[in-house]
Order: sequence, then C-alpha cells, then structure tokens
Amino acid sequence: MMRAAHYFGEKDVRVEDAPMPVIEEPTDAILRVTTTAVCGTDLHIYHDKAPGAEPGMILGHEFAGVVEEVGDAVREIEAGTRAVAAMYTACGRCASCLAGNHRGCPAFMMFGMGPMAGDLPGGQAEYVRVPMAEMTLAPIPDGLSDEDVLFVSDILATAYSGLKAGAIRPGDSVAVVGAGPLGQLVMACAPLLGAGTVFAIDLVEERLKQAAEQGAIPIDARDGDPLDAVFDSTNNQGADLVIEAVGSSPSLETAFTLARVGGRVVLLGVLVDEEFPITAGEMFLRGLTASAVIGNPFAYRPELMRLIEAGRLSPGRLVSHTMPLEDAPEAYRMFDAKEATKVVLKP
Amino acid sequence: MMRAAHYFGEKDVRVEDAPMPVIEEPTDAILRVTTTAVCGTDLHIYHDKAPGAEPGMILGHEFAGVVEEVGDAVREIEAGTRAVAAMYTACGRCASCLAGNHRGCPAFMMFGMGPMAGDLPGGQAEYVRVPMAEMTLAPIPDGLSDEDVLFVSDILATAYSGLKAGAIRPGDSVAVVGAGPLGQLVMACAPLLGAGTVFAIDLVEERLKQAAEQGAIPIDARDGDPLDAVFDSTNNQGADLVIEAVGSSPSLETAFTLARVGGRVVLLGVLVDEEFPITAGEMFLRGLTASAVIGNPFAYRPELMRLIEAGRLSPGRLVSHTMPLEDAPEAYRMFDAKEATKVVLKP
Amino acid sequence: MMRAAHYFGEKDVRVEDAPMPVIEEPTDAILRVTTTAVCGTDLHIYHDKAPGAEPGMILGHEFAGVVEEVGDAVREIEAGTRAVAAMYTACGRCASCLAGNHRGCPAFMMFGMGPMAGDLPGGQAEYVRVPMAEMTLAPIPDGLSDEDVLFVSDILATAYSGLKAGAIRPGDSVAVVGAGPLGQLVMACAPLLGAGTVFAIDLVEERLKQAAEQGAIPIDARDGDPLDAVFDSTNNQGADLVIEAVGSSPSLETAFTLARVGGRVVLLGVLVDEEFPITAGEMFLRGLTASAVIGNPFAYRPELMRLIEAGRLSPGRLVSHTMPLEDAPEAYRMFDAKEATKVVLKP
Amino acid sequence: MMRAAHYFGEKDVRVEDAPMPVIEEPTDAILRVTTTAVCGTDLHIYHDKAPGAEPGMILGHEFAGVVEEVGDAVREIEAGTRAVAAMYTACGRCASCLAGNHRGCPAFMMFGMGPMAGDLPGGQAEYVRVPMAEMTLAPIPDGLSDEDVLFVSDILATAYSGLKAGAIRPGDSVAVVGAGPLGQLVMACAPLLGAGTVFAIDLVEERLKQAAEQGAIPIDARDGDPLDAVFDSTNNQGADLVIEAVGSSPSLETAFTLARVGGRVVLLGVLVDEEFPITAGEMFLRGLTASAVIGNPFAYRPELMRLIEAGRLSPGRLVSHTMPLEDAPEAYRMFDAKEATKVVLKP
Repeated sequence: MMRAAHYFGEKDVRVEDAPMPVIEEPTDAILRVTTTAVCGTDLHIYHDKAPGAEPGMILGHEFAGVVEEVGDAVREIEAGTRAVAAMYTACGRCASCLAGNHRGCPAFMMFGMGPMAGDLPGGQAEYVRVPMAEMTLAPIPDGLSDEDVLFVSDILATAYSGLKAGAIRPGDSVAVVGAGPLGQLVMACAPLLGAGTVFAIDLVEERLKQAAEQGAIPIDARDGDPLDAVFDSTNNQGADLVIEAVGSSPSLETAFTLARVGGRVVLLGVLVDEEFPITAGEMFLRGLTASAVIGNPFAYRPELMRLIEAGRLSPGRLVSHTMPLEDAPEAYRMFDAKEATKVVLKP
Repeated sequence: MMRAAHYFGEKDVRVEDAPMPVIEEPTDAILRVTTTAVCGTDLHIYHDKAPGAEPGMILGHEFAGVVEEVGDAVREIEAGTRAVAAMYTACGRCASCLAGNHRGCPAFMMFGMGPMAGDLPGGQAEYVRVPMAEMTLAPIPDGLSDEDVLFVSDILATAYSGLKAGAIRPGDSVAVVGAGPLGQLVMACAPLLGAGTVFAIDLVEERLKQAAEQGAIPIDARDGDPLDAVFDSTNNQGADLVIEAVGSSPSLETAFTLARVGGRVVLLGVLVDEEFPITAGEMFLRGLTASAVIGNPFAYRPELMRLIEAGRLSPGRLVSHTMPLEDAPEAYRMFDAKEATKVVLKP
Repeated sequence: MMRAAHYFGEKDVRVEDAPMPVIEEPTDAILRVTTTAVCGTDLHIYHDKAPGAEPGMILGHEFAGVVEEVGDAVREIEAGTRAVAAMYTACGRCASCLAGNHRGCPAFMMFGMGPMAGDLPGGQAEYVRVPMAEMTLAPIPDGLSDEDVLFVSDILATAYSGLKAGAIRPGDSVAVVGAGPLGQLVMACAPLLGAGTVFAIDLVEERLKQAAEQGAIPIDARDGDPLDAVFDSTNNQGADLVIEAVGSSPSLETAFTLARVGGRVVLLGVLVDEEFPITAGEMFLRGLTASAVIGNPFAYRPELMRLIEAGRLSPGRLVSHTMPLEDAPEAYRMFDAKEATKVVLKP
Repeated sequence: MMRAAHYFGEKDVRVEDAPMPVIEEPTDAILRVTTTAVCGTDLHIYHDKAPGAEPGMILGHEFAGVVEEVGDAVREIEAGTRAVAAMYTACGRCASCLAGNHRGCPAFMMFGMGPMAGDLPGGQAEYVRVPMAEMTLAPIPDGLSDEDVLFVSDILATAYSGLKAGAIRPGDSVAVVGAGPLGQLVMACAPLLGAGTVFAIDLVEERLKQAAEQGAIPIDARDGDPLDAVFDSTNNQGADLVIEAVGSSPSLETAFTLARVGGRVVLLGVLVDEEFPITAGEMFLRGLTASAVIGNPFAYRPELMRLIEAGRLSPGRLVSHTMPLEDAPEAYRMFDAKEATKVVLKP
C-alpha cells in the first residue's frame, strides 16, 4: 500500500492508503513521486465543478520523481532516472501527434481527472503509473531541482502555449488579466518571446507587487477602468495581445475591452459556461481574434527545458509553500483561499 | 464634368454628372477608369446599412484604369500606365504600415464609403482622384486584362487575407460557408495555400455547381445538416478551418458547428450587430480560435499579382456580366438579386 | 526463408534467399512487402559510393505492405493493416523528435543502408522487420493504392522538405535544376505551397516534356545558359528559390547562378565531396541563403497523406515500370541508365 | 556652408566645409544632425576597400537629429521633430518594398557610400538631405535620447536581422563569433527572440568581459578550440545557430565548425572575396544552412523602437566615446584601433 491524496467531494480531499500501482503495459513506468503541485484545475474538482471527477480518485497532474521500474518495451528511460511528467499522455507517433495536435491523440488520458479523461490515477501520491513513459516523462537535467522543472507538466506549458497561440510578435504590448500563478508565468515567458510593455491587471495587492517585480506595469482594477492605464501607455490603441488568465466572466469582459483594433485575445483560464462577452458584429468591427487555448506540454517541453537550463526562466520561484503529502487537505484549503501562490507537496 | 454612379438612398443609385477630379496633393494621381466592379460591401450601402454613407457620394472601391495625370511628387508611376487601385489608402511608411497594419495608418481612407472613411469619392466613375498614387496603384503587367487583376482591389485580397488569418496549413480541410463571389475566391486561393479537402456550403444550386467546378465538395444546406457531410469526409472530426463568407447569423451558426476541436473559424463576411453564436465556455471546451478579418490588399498584392501572372489564379472568371457605367442602377439591382455572380462596369 | 534484393558490390545486385525476419523488440512489426521502389540513393550504393554499404546487405528504404505480425507493445497498428514505411526510424518521444529533429533521435536507423545507419535490413524483400512500428508505419487510407503513397517514405517527403527548408512563399519563382524523379516531385509540390512560375532545367527531352506537362517552363540547358531564360521571365531578377535536385558539381554551379539577389538555394541532391560553387564574398554580396536538406518523412507525412487523399498530389504517376522482385537487377540497371523514371518491384 | 566629415583616401578622413544641403525633391527633408556614429562599414571605406567610395564624399549612415525643413509633399513629419534615419532609402510602396525586400527597391540609395549606392551624402555632417523623409526617418519617442535609438539606423537592425534570418527559435543555443559592437548587439537581441545559452567567441579580453556581463558564456579563442567549450555546454552537439559578426576568413572557419548537424550559420560581418570555408559535400552531410544577411531597418524598425521604449533593449550602452564632429579623424583612428567600442560624434 501507499499514501495518496483522494478526492471525495466538494472541498473534501483526504490522504488515504491506496494500492501500489503496477506496470500494466510494456511501455509503462512506475514513478516514485518526490514533488507534486496543486494546480488551478485541481480547484475545479475541489469545487465539484469538473465533469467526470469521481469520489475516491487520486488527484494530481503536476509531478516529478524518480523512475522506480519500467516495462519491457521501455528503452530510452531507466530506473533511477529523475523525471518530470506531462499532465496528459499522447503517443507521439500517430498522425495527430506528428501534426502537433497531441490532445487529439487516441491515447490521450489526463492524470487525476477521472473517467472522462481516461481514469488515470494522479500523481499526488507516493507512486504513480506513467503510461508511454518515454513520451510522458522527460529526464530532469543535472543540476536542476524538481521545483525548477515541475511546472513544465502543466501551468508553465499552458502559459507559454497561450502566448504562442496569441501569435505574440516582438515589441507587442501584452495585457495579462489575472496575476495569479498562471498570469505570473505568462509574464515570465512573455519577454522571452519578444514582449514589449507588459501590463498586469488584478485586484490583489500582493499579486500586483509580484507582477511589478517581473517588470510588468501593475494595474489595480479597483482603482478605475484598466483600459485607461493601458491606453496611457499605448498611444490610446489598446494592447496588441490580451491573455485572460483567470477564467471568469468579469475577467473576460475586461480582457475584450483592452484589445486594440486588430488585436488578439487569448482565453487561457478554464471556462465552463460563461457567455462570450461581445457580439460577432463588434468582433468584426474591431477586427479581433479570440483563441481558446489548452496547454500543450509536448509541443513546448524541449524549448522550455532548455530555457530553464539556460537560466532564462525560473518558474520554481512561484512556489510559496512546501508541505508533506499528508497535509494535502490543508494545501488545497490554502490554495483555494489564495493564501498561497503555489503549493508543492512532498510524498 | 464627368459621369459617375452616385448613391442617394436605399436602392437608389443614379449615374449623374460630377465635377472632374483634380490633383489636390503632390502625391495624387488622376486615374481614367476603364473597369470597375460592384462589390458586396456596396450592397451594404445600397441597403442603407453602412454607417457614414451620405446621399450624393460617388460609389466604388474596386477599379482599374489608365493614369491620366500625376502630382509633382509622383516618381514611380507615370501618365499612360495601366494600373489597378487598392480599395483603401495607406502611406506605406509609418510604423503601423511597416508593421503590416495598413488599416491603422493615419492616412487611411476608403474609396466610395463616405465621410466616416475619409470622404474619398469612389471609382464607379469616368475619373477618380487617387491619393498616394505610388502606394494605392499597382501597374498591370503586360498581357493581363483589367478583369484579370481587378479583384486585387478588394474581394480577392479579402479572400486571401481570410485564409492567411485562418493560419491555413497544408493538408487542412477547409469549409467555406457561402459560395457567392467571396466564397468562390476563397476556394480558388485555398489550394495555392495547401488546402486539402475543400467544402462549399450554400443554398443556391448554381453556386454549388461553380464550387464543384473548382474542385470543392458541394454541400446543399437544404439537404440536411452540413455537419453530417463534413463529418463524413473528416473522420468525424470537423473542418480544420471554416471561412464564413456571407455575413449573417444563420451562416455564423453553421460555421461554428463545422469546426473541429482545436479548429479555426474566420469571420470574413461583413457583420454589424449579429450575436456571437456560441458561449465562451463552449469555445474553451472546443479549443477554438475565431478571427474577424478585413482584407489587406497591400500586404498581399505583390504575391497575388505574381500568382495571377503565373496563371495560378484566374479571378477574372468570376465576372458574369459586363455593362456600361450608365447601367449602374441595373447592375446594382441584378447583383443584389443574385442574378449575377459579379458585374463589372465600363465607364 | 524469403527472397530479397542483396547488394554485393558495384553494379552487383542479386535476388537471393534470406532468413525470415522476426520480432526482436516488443515495439517491432513484421511487414509483408507488397510494393517497393528503387530510389536515387540506392544508386549511390549501386555505384559503390555510399559509405557503410556492405556486401550481402538487403537493400531498399521505400516500401509499403501489409502488417503480418506485431510485438507485444504495439497498440495502434495491427496485423492485416496496410501501411507505408518511413525511410528511417525515430522514436517520436525524445526531446530531439519533439523538436522536429527526427534525424537527431538516438533511435535513428535507416533501412537498407548498412552498418553506419544502424544495420537495418531493407524493404526490397518479401518481408521486413520494422522497428517502432507505430511511428515508422503509417496506415494507408482506404481507396489508395500502394503507389499512391509509396513515395511518402522518402522521395516525396524529400521534395517537400526541400521546398519547406527553402522557405517558399506564395508567388515565388522556383527554378528546379534536374527534372528527374526528385525534381518532378518538387514541381508537383511547389504549386501547393504557393509557387508562381516554376522553371525546370535539364538536358533530357523526355524529362523536360514531363515538366511542361506539370505546368513548369522547360529549359533545355543544351540550348544556352539557363539564366537567360530565367531572366526573361523574372524581370532580370533571377529565381526566388532554386532547388538543386541532381547532386553534381555542374548542377550546383547552375543552381547558384539562377538565384536572385536575396534568393535561396536548396541542396537537395545527394552530395559527397563537391566543392561549394561560389565564394563567401559572392554569397554575401548577393545576400544568398543556401540550405542542405535531408528529407523528413515524419514532419510532413500527415499533411502529405492528406494532400494525396484529397487528390491534390498524385505522386504515383511517377511510376514508369512495375516488375517482380526477382527482376531487381534489371530494375537497378534500367533506373541507373535513366531508361525508367521510377521503378517499383512487387515481391 | 556647413561642416562635414569627408573621405579622401585610405585612413584619410577630414572635417571640411561643404555646401548646405537643400530640398531637391518634394518628398525630401533636411535634418540637422545632433548625433552620428562611426560604423564598421565606414572602416571598410577607411581602408579603401569599399567599391565606389570616392574622394571628397561625405561619410556616415547612422545618424539622428531634428527635422529642419520638409518638401511640399511631406505630410507625416514636420520641422522640429526629432528623428532617427535608416541607413538607406526605399520607397515603401513598390512591389519589392511591400514584399519586405527593401534593398530591391528602385529608390534604394545608401547614405555616405558613394556613387555605386546612389551618391547620397552621409550624415556625419551638420545637415543632411533625407530623401523620402516619411520613410527614411522615424520620430524619436519622447523620453528617449539620440543614443537610445541611433543604432536602429544600421548596426542594431543588422544584428536583429541576422537572428531573424537565422530563424532563431526559443531555446536555441547561439554562438556569436566576434564580440565587437555588432556581436554585442546580437547578444543583446538574442534573449528577446528566445535564445537559450549564448556563447561569445573573441580574442579580446575586454570584449569577452562585456559579453559575460550580457549573460553570454565568454570563450577566449586563444585558449584552445572554441568548439570544445561549445560542445561542453551542448551535449556535444554544437550550436543551433552561429552568427559570424566579424567578416574575416578565420572567423568564418570557426563559425562553420561550431554549428551542430542541421544547424544554421549566418554571415553578418561584411565579406568581399573570402573563400567559402567548407565543401558543398560537407554542407550536405551536416545538413547546414548558411545565410548571408544585410540588415533591414525598415522591416524591423517598428518592433525595435517598441522594444527600446519598453526598456527591453538599451543599445545606447554600447557608446564608449562621445566627441565633437571636428574630431572625426580621431574617432575613425580610435575605432579602427579598437580603442573604442562605439564612437558618436556631435555636430
């Protein structure tokens, strides 16, 4: 038996015993988890809003550890290797994967998201079974800690995917609506893709302070319409690129006001049934592009790992709290209450 | 005095005398118009739906002719040169133009669209003043007729801009909603940008026949849900790229149903106050991108001219009727009644 | 035992018995070959110019067939499936593969090229062992013949890779030096990537005729300097993009003369020790880019398959001769003597 | 009369009187120069190696100042505006300019380079005539000094053009051969375009120190083969992208050794008659791309200005010496002797 964080219902996460995972397919590996994070998507489950979440399932899709055992067909990764996982699986070999559409792979499954995503137990546990290990896992380069690379699993890849999907061009003004962990990583990545002026819009002083430390212009939405501040710095044009990094209706409304004529808006925060905030007519008149983006760790993992290794990106800075796995319930509570920027658990 | 087609109100176009245009700026040219087309955007004015249209204004933004006279500062084009105009003006030299955003140029004016677009008389006339002539006009290569290049002014550039804005990739399945003149040109351009299977959705048999002649799979929307036909040819995925080429709510609805997960929808038909057809939540769930596009003749004119010269594109085929300028009222009536695919007038 | 074409030395190819291949790795498949082609690269071996070729090895890296058996770890492809192979193997999962550099994969091996390329027996045989079958093989869509897709293995992927590496842009003038099978496929692909005028330079009348049938402007290099003809059609500029599709010094010389200032030259034909035909000083003065390209079937297979399925590409047309596998020696002789455009063997 | 730096022969630069420039074309402006730099290209003239340089001509193609007077056709820029020039002229309106090939414009002329480049007097003078002023000049944003934007004229645009032409991708390892002013600006721009590890190869300690301050790994070529150091940091692969920023044979040799298989080499330093350092055969075997690049200030000026305004780029740091125009002879001597990183003159 091992210990693992289980979901049992709204705001009900418990660490309980679970059977040790075993190799089921010859391409599997068993990973001994050494670090795992609680992600914004986990909070959707925590609030019982994620379709498919089932009581009793093991949570977690951001994790790193040490390979404990590999299946007969695994050649490129071996027991003893430190590795970070991707949040979901894909084969890397079908037409969909080769075309860069890893979410369209027939072998797609997401860790810790229940039956609708393949019923794959998550990584907030002592051990986790990792399908297609050579694809799902990436070795951690010597000299890097788990925290340095952990967010390549999901949140960093998602931030980066958003900027890429938003077709960021050098010199672009970029407005980030929401300066939580996702928004902070958008701000960390934007200059590496050529961003000029970056704006951070939020309501929480601490987050705005973090944004300013990253070189963004902080805009407190409680102080008036954020558009005024964006107009002031863009010759009254608005932002070239707006990233909505919250996932809420008010935030969407704000995001669409900030884009210049011909600008781009990226929907990066998780949305469920929110209305589209403008008419198609307004969209046409303003020549806008809107892209809804789900992160792709496979498409961007090689370059993200290299940027981290080269010291251009330090996503580990985002970790505000480190706790033992047994404290997972408290970690969820704190993260949900916005008392922590990002919590990692140590099984 | 000269003759010109004037707008006087809903469905009220008359050919009347107007003063001969003169050089006002040293960078102007006067063009003697030899061929001019009625465009779908003109029908918006015809239906009194275009904000800014004023009684008495001269219509027309697709035209070609012979340079009659040039201002003192014009060096690269001279009297006697055959040339085709762009539908709007831009300086080519400011930061906005150099960055490819010609609509954002302070010198932007559109021909024949009234005071809100610079109050620049249109080209459905014997003569027209062409500001910034070296930019606005492109010489017509030897051996090409007016009709061969006329649509570079607007509708061909718009069709092409739509495919580019939709980030078309080789092999993509492309669904074109609306097989009118704009849709037909989208279908003509798509294979040059790598399109795989192309679908044409319409309700008019003649248009579907023309689409089939271009190699598209015709789908008659009266025969059932077009999605069924698109699914049949795309492994039940939907289209990679959907181009809405009508500008109406039902057409928008259809367009959004046809896109695959992760697909792209381009709003190319003119929209005014239509609702956005899906929620932001659905957009996120399906990972869609929606782009509203206004054509850019300057960005694409060089390559379009070369494709026409090389025989890869023959947009002149679209011309179904040729009439003297004096018949402009009848031309508008026929085009509005969909009795003509595309009408050109000969002043 | 099975029958297979073996290499024994210069111009010495013999069909002899060989042991039946067996599953060696759980990710392998055994393919029963139904169609296989002789490729230009095979002629390098035939002339004893390929480093690493060893007497006794089985030839062939362009082949298609039916999956006979799969290893324990193969999930996405099964016995009975018709499939076409890639000319080399790559894992699809390492950082190099995910970054699109499949030749840099540690699992790289090329079929039928001897010990320096992994010592992997080729496909000019009744059966062939296919490593990493889910990656190396692509299912053949219903309704397509072996010949329709066969060249995706190598020569079509190489032609296409050359145009992509040459950063082809819509409207570009493209000069293809060498109208053999590789050049013909470059000409077939170029219009799908937007080529304007295409020139075909060769010395063989039949090849020039085939080029003209594809819409290229044929230039017989025996009739004078090909640059004259290219200048005539490009306002004395030269070609935007030049593809050297032969692999010889005279051909290289010609290729570099044809490029315009700021143009691009792609080295697509196999080179061994040929001199670079211009100085670095001339290269700088003319602002040229030169790219040496080795085809990547994995990067482009999905889109090539879709273009073939959609009827945009018909590479099977290139097959001029079909022979039984037992006639491999004659096939090599004919292909080497340029008596055949492209020969396929049927085991 | 005014004062201006004239070229009279090898190492013979003198500041002498010259006639005041006047408006010759309605699109001209007269710029009162406030700051002008000596550029590496000027040293080619200084060493009498620039074809076309003529005794008596006024030097200088990097300069900024205040608009003194404009021609009748100039609308978008007015007397009193502070502006920085581009090193050469182009119309912005012809097919070549619209396609981004500004060097191919019929109106191309370069400042201070003699009759072969249009015989346009340079900007190392109190006043200079600026053709096509709306295109050639860019207004200097409020709050920025001449030095902040001066290098957009040439050397910064060239550095940036080199990285773009080298198709830099996020995470790339970039080796810069030559840590002089051009190389330093390559190093400043590379991280904004996603560079991972950057290497600086030089023989001069001071330059290597400056490179290290910019975050590059300094490699002293006197300490052994630079390839060893590059291999150590790239898993023995070599660099993804190599920029030759010197313009000499030894430097070219080094550049080509450093590129990985499939890598790219950019020839950015001025070359005249140097040999190409490898054979075409080696180029093919290693799958290399080599691009000779001449900077394009028009293509990149908008984004460079925005990056400077946003504080992402501070090219003014490069200025090591500021002198009155009268000291131009000494400025040339010092710059040639590598006693100065970059000298600016104040007329």
